[in-house]
Parts: sequence; C-alpha cells; structure tokens
Amino acid sequence: MRVLGIDCGTERTGYGVIESDGQRHRILTAGVVRTSAKSPMEARLLEIFRKLREVIREYGPAAGAVEEVFSAANAKTALKLAQVRGVALLAIAEAGLDCGAYSPLEVKMSVVGYGRAEKSQVQLMVHSLLRPEPAIRSEDACDALAVAICHATRMAAARRWENAE
Amino acid sequence: MRVLGIDCGTERTGYGVIESDGQRHRILTAGVVRTSAKSPMEARLLEIFRKLREVIREYGPAAGAVEEVFSAANAKTALKLAQVRGVALLAIAEAGLDCGAYSPLEVKMSVVGYGRAEKSQVQLMVHSLLRPEPAIRSEDACDALAVAICHATRMAAARRWENAE
Repeated sequence: MRVLGIDCGTERTGYGVIESDGQRHRILTAGVVRTSAKSPMEARLLEIFRKLREVIREYGPAAGAVEEVFSAANAKTALKLAQVRGVALLAIAEAGLDCGAYSPLEVKMSVVGYGRAEKSQVQLMVHSLLRPEPAIRSEDACDALAVAICHATRMAAARRWENAE
Repeated sequence: MRVLGIDCGTERTGYGVIESDGQRHRILTAGVVRTSAKSPMEARLLEIFRKLREVIREYGPAAGAVEEVFSAANAKTALKLAQVRGVALLAIAEAGLDCGAYSPLEVKMSVVGYGRAEKSQVQLMVHSLLRPEPAIRSEDACDALAVAICHATRMAAARRWENAE
C-alpha cells in the first residue's frame, strides 16, 4: 500500500510517499514545498496544492494522511496552518484517496513508541525504518514520512483486527 | 467589473457574484453550498471547492473576496473555518482572480457605513443595493454579497485615487 504523508506549514510543507505492508516500509519520495513569505497567502496555497497534486499523480498513493491542527500558543499561526491543512485535505479528497488524520502524539507513539518523543527521535526512527539514501535533511519531509508511517501502521493493524474477527 | 464574494462556513458557505462599477451594483448569482455534518471534512472541502470553481467558470469574475478569520471564542470552530477559507482562497488563486480579504468590520463599514452593524442591517442594505428578485433568504448568501460589494467599492475607490494622483 502506498501512503502519502503531509506535514503542513505556511512556509514549508513537507511531503513523503512510502510503500508499506504496515510493518516494512520503503520510501518512494520525500521533499518540501517552500513558499515565499512575500507571496500572498492564496498564491502560497496554490503552490502547495499544485505540488501535492503532482506528487499524487506521480506516485499514485492509495491513502493520504495529515496531522491535526491544534490552536497553539499563537492562534494566528494556527489559523494560517489550518488554511494549508484545508488545501492538503482537498488534494487528498480530489484524488479520491483514503484520508487519515492524526494528532502529533499519535504520530510519535506510532513511530517512536513514545508520545512525548523529541523531534530528533522522530527523525532518527524515520531514518532507521526507511534507510533513505542519502539521508533526509529536511525536518518537514521527515515529519511527513512519520505521518505516512503512522497511517500505514494503523491501517495494517485495523485490517488485522478485521481479519481476526 | 465582476466580483465574487465568499462567506466561508463549514456547514454553509455562501457565495455571490455581482457586476459593479463601484457605485452601482447588479447581482448575477447568489447561493449557498451546504455540506453534511456527517461527511468527513475532506469531502466537505471538496464539495465547497467544486461549487466555487463552477461559479467562477460560469460567471467569470475578475476578482474574488473573502472575510478574514479570527480566532473566535471557539478556537476549534475558527480552525475548521480556516480550512474552508484555505480552499476558497485556492479557488480564487487557481482561477487567476484578484484576491481581496476584509475583516467583518470593514465589510460592515463598506456596506452599512457602520462597523458594528447588526446582521439584519447588512441584509437590509444588500437588498437595498442589489434589489434581488426574489429576495435572498440565505443569510450566508447575503453575507457573501456584502463581501463582494465591499471589494468592488474598495477597488473602485483605489482606482479613483490612482487616477487623481
């Protein structure tokens, strides 16, 4: 099963596609859409949407997953982020993919096994699970891959439950 | 000049297109996209996006305008709204329209002449300015038309300033 993970951000939106049976994962692509702070929001959203659509077309994932947005200390930042998330969800829905949404805690639990893991631990585990060559420098691409791994693992576990019943 | 106004909402997104010289306004269309609370968010966003795209194709506005989202008393609602706003901005950007964003206060100032106007006053002024037949029942469609009127008025004023200089 191919899964697209997206790490939404106004300035940098990470994305990654993995091929996974729920236990072994293989990386197909990962990257970041960087948008200029000088561009108006609508232009940035269009840029992000077009790149996600391109990645979906090229790698044909069956599912797409994003993180939940919480109203953080900075409400303004959270609102901007939510706009990007809307566009990411739209790209997933437009392509007819299954859609998953996870809290940062769920992603960390799934990838590191510990909900309060540090960013660096997530990156370490993503590298350990996927063994990308060369290593992935972008934290945002790593986070996107972590979301994809989380979704793939969850889906496989759900299927095992269904089969067991 | 044709202007599309959008009033973003998770359950009901209002839209309206007017033809305007900045002083006289004529209504071309107005309506509401209603999405089911039972549908997942990504499906609702897709529905809203497709309808806005259809309206843009049919009426060919030169500009699109939306309201700003503020973090309201209910932060969760504001975040949902921001996702819809992201999709509305995307529809505007994808079609290459000029994009305007106004605070609710600016819209009320522009349409009613008073920033703290009641919703009912906005509706009354929208009807008085556009004389739609039959009257527009939906508050959301009315709000969208108010945003369109605000943008058309602002743009015309900006042009007059430029010409005067």
